Amino acid sequence: MLYYAEPVSKLIEELSKLPGVGPKTAQRLAFFLLRQSRSDAVALARAIVDAHDKTKYCSSCMNLTERDPCRFCCDEQRDQSLICVVEDPRDVVAIEKTRDYHGLYHVLHGSLSPMEGIGPEQLKIKELMSRLSSPHLREVIVASNPTVEGEATAAYLARLIKPMGLKVTRIAHGLPVGGDLEYADQVTLLRALEGRREL
Amino acid sequence: MLYYAEPVSKLIEELSKLPGVGPKTAQRLAFFLLRQSRSDAVALARAIVDAHDKTKYCSSCMNLTERDPCRFCCDEQRDQSLICVVEDPRDVVAIEKTRDYHGLYHVLHGSLSPMEGIGPEQLKIKELMSRLSSPHLREVIVASNPTVEGEATAAYLARLIKPMGLKVTRIAHGLPVGGDLEYADQVTLLRALEGRREL
Repeated sequence: MLYYAEPVSKLIEELSKLPGVGPKTAQRLAFFLLRQSRSDAVALARAIVDAHDKTKYCSSCMNLTERDPCRFCCDEQRDQSLICVVEDPRDVVAIEKTRDYHGLYHVLHGSLSPMEGIGPEQLKIKELMSRLSSPHLREVIVASNPTVEGEATAAYLARLIKPMGLKVTRIAHGLPVGGDLEYADQVTLLRALEGRREL
Repeated sequence: MLYYAEPVSKLIEELSKLPGVGPKTAQRLAFFLLRQSRSDAVALARAIVDAHDKTKYCSSCMNLTERDPCRFCCDEQRDQSLICVVEDPRDVVAIEKTRDYHGLYHVLHGSLSPMEGIGPEQLKIKELMSRLSSPHLREVIVASNPTVEGEATAAYLARLIKPMGLKVTRIAHGLPVGGDLEYADQVTLLRALEGRREL
């Protein structure tokens, strides 16, 4: 680092902090940015700051949004009887891409992980609970990840919500479409068998 | 992209322009940056703009520098009789890391590539030629990359500089240290044989 001009070293250092970016990649990115026009570099810099300054959490569903409430919560065409609970704003996008879910969302911003000190207080669970009194609501779909933490979160939410007389469902586990039985892990296969449906 | 808040989409779009960053990586980076504190995000944004605004080419060696002339060109301890010609500012750093070269540098900012429309005018060759009249100079070491373009550049420079009575040398080709003869390509092996030295 010593060998580069100070602003270049600084840029390499900052880029190295990005996930999956080692020193070599950081150098490559830094010199790419230096070769770009100043306006292109400024566009990236501005986008980084704007993403921070111009987005906030929707006060209802906790998704990242420009305006509060977000367009999902505003949209009266969406099915108000369903809330799909996800860990991350990216999961909302993944589900939207199926084009088959038209209910509401709730973003937890993580999953229960005692190992990392993430308890219910660190997640947007309080905010979820406050939405459950809506008279339209009938079902909460828990779409946390199929990981240990995601399952723990799902179990925790089910225990919390079921006593309120709401239906709580979990997205199905099974073989990914296009997958190969032979290469599926045992747990997935077990879940696929358990979740079998009549044809 | 449609599904994210506009500033987030914009950030993902800008990050996607970086080399080796596909849409998935861009999303991952964007959400990483959103999870960072605002001041961390601003630090990266500032580093990007500063690298543009606070560095320029050294008027002598064309390396990226904060002040002109750069610290290599300023340093009277360095051997004024040697100029090592490289393609890229990163190559200067690579050579500095050997801690065994104490001459001057010249950065071409590329290599001759007729396919990409890069001729001698697009490189800092004119600037190199103007340095060759220095009374101290005895040898020009051409350390362009061992690629077709790098070799063409080396040959071009040799033809240009030799008539001026200066020694022009090319860095050696051969097996990388720690490499394996069995896995070396034929051309490298051929060059290693040609360049053999008495023990």
